[in-house]
Amino acid sequence: MEWTSVAEAIRNMVVRGAPAIGVTAAYGMALAAQAGDDLIVAASGLRASRPTAVNLFWALDRIEALQTTDPAVILSEAVNIDDEDLQMNLAIGQFGAELVPPGARILTICNTGSLATSGHGTALGIIRSAYALDPSIAVISCETRPRLQGLKLTAWELQKDGIPFKSISDSAAASLMAQGRVDLVVVGADRIASNGDTANKIGTYSLAIAAKYHGIPFVVAAPSSTIDLEVTRGNQIPIEEREGSEITHLDGIAIAPAGCPTWNPGFDITPSGLISAIVTEQGIYNPPFGF
Amino acid sequence: MEWTSVAEAIRNMVVRGAPAIGVTAAYGMALAAQAGDDLIVAASGLRASRPTAVNLFWALDRIEALQTTDPAVILSEAVNIDDEDLQMNLAIGQFGAELVPPGARILTICNTGSLATSGHGTALGIIRSAYALDPSIAVISCETRPRLQGLKLTAWELQKDGIPFKSISDSAAASLMAQGRVDLVVVGADRIASNGDTANKIGTYSLAIAAKYHGIPFVVAAPSSTIDLEVTRGNQIPIEEREGSEITHLDGIAIAPAGCPTWNPGFDITPSGLISAIVTEQGIYNPPFGF
Repeated sequence: MEWTSVAEAIRNMVVRGAPAIGVTAAYGMALAAQAGDDLIVAASGLRASRPTAVNLFWALDRIEALQTTDPAVILSEAVNIDDEDLQMNLAIGQFGAELVPPGARILTICNTGSLATSGHGTALGIIRSAYALDPSIAVISCETRPRLQGLKLTAWELQKDGIPFKSISDSAAASLMAQGRVDLVVVGADRIASNGDTANKIGTYSLAIAAKYHGIPFVVAAPSSTIDLEVTRGNQIPIEEREGSEITHLDGIAIAPAGCPTWNPGFDITPSGLISAIVTEQGIYNPPFGF
Repeated sequence: MEWTSVAEAIRNMVVRGAPAIGVTAAYGMALAAQAGDDLIVAASGLRASRPTAVNLFWALDRIEALQTTDPAVILSEAVNIDDEDLQMNLAIGQFGAELVPPGARILTICNTGSLATSGHGTALGIIRSAYALDPSIAVISCETRPRLQGLKLTAWELQKDGIPFKSISDSAAASLMAQGRVDLVVVGADRIASNGDTANKIGTYSLAIAAKYHGIPFVVAAPSSTIDLEVTRGNQIPIEEREGSEITHLDGIAIAPAGCPTWNPGFDITPSGLISAIVTEQGIYNPPFGF
């Protein structure tokens, strides 16, 4: 396998989830070194694969900081990044579980579990850690259009772990909140500005507004590698616009009239004012945020 | 065709949209009368087809009030209901167009056009009337999970009429609002309580909260037959819970892991406090509403 295939896998979302993208890019650099490829070209190609998740740039920065072309050294650092991500997720889970009330019904979006990280997960890591302490909790999983990572991946992970859950259409979340059936919202992040503004999967912002309206705590979970200190406000975070076919087609089948125009941003920005807490491997941060 | 097939078509959403359901049920009664069926049984069977849209009960009440089994009389009343619905929609469109600012970008959900009514439409009727007066308006059409009436039907109607539009994932609406790219939200209704609380397609409530948060007017469009004076508050409106397969399968294909549990309400309640105006064929009503 070549680094170009790794870049392609990130672009096509074969690998997705901000932490997993970072780890995978680091392994891509190890592959490039092993093949004797130009590492500046490889790093630049991997950087161009997707724009929003900062973990990608963070991991590539770490590899480049080694200032070596030795495949063994680069591979070892990629393994470190991978191992550290798992450790960070376990710490996020432990801290975040403190925020989960007994018997909580926790709403989440997208996939932030083992399929998005090196293991355990960020938002789903908090859910896993909380469930280990309190098996009476339950999850409401937003399906997460257009790519349905919630319906396809999170549902699969929750089933595998035996954690009680229901999948819902994204647009049904507010109605559940109005009925008093959501105690906590926990989401991941693709990039966090130094003021706490958070880029995450499209739909997150809508959940944050609805949570605020219903007085429900809204928690962001991410390793500190997701915090981008060079970005002071959310509106500076580049938002990837993806192909309209993600909306108009599903598994290759057309579900819209031919030629249907679309707007398909992959992410949105949740302003820090809507966030109750940000949980990293270093602890729980409360507003006002200042990283 | 028998009235039982009509009831089945309403239940399976072959015919959908509150006004179209009412008109169709009236024609179903005409079919029952023509076949010499027991009209009490037919009315009761048609009433049981779907619970939320009050137009169904309203139309059947009108037919039953004739106190006749004469097929010609019943058919004539069904035709009246059909004709009147079209006239009401044209009036709704005319009144509602007054609420549309020049060049407005109008966000809507579900299908409320010719495929949901006798013609022209309710929310989409306002859009059609506004477009006739001002071709610089544009539409943002929420795809409307789980059944995708927005992506499939509204997109088709807008394409046919040449009205500029984009289809979006339902969860992207709030992000567009934050970017100042939505000037007005217009939606239909399945039942309106006498205080203005409105049952409509699941996802409507989420849009109403987001519109309020961003200071964007939120308009409900419906014929007066959608107002249920026997219901004083939204929480008295029965909300249909539909099969989970609407979420887990699309066009018969599984898109979730087998056995994935779901919660699939067809509608939600938007409290009157989030509604800027209700437009019926009788005019524009402003809050506080009292019908």
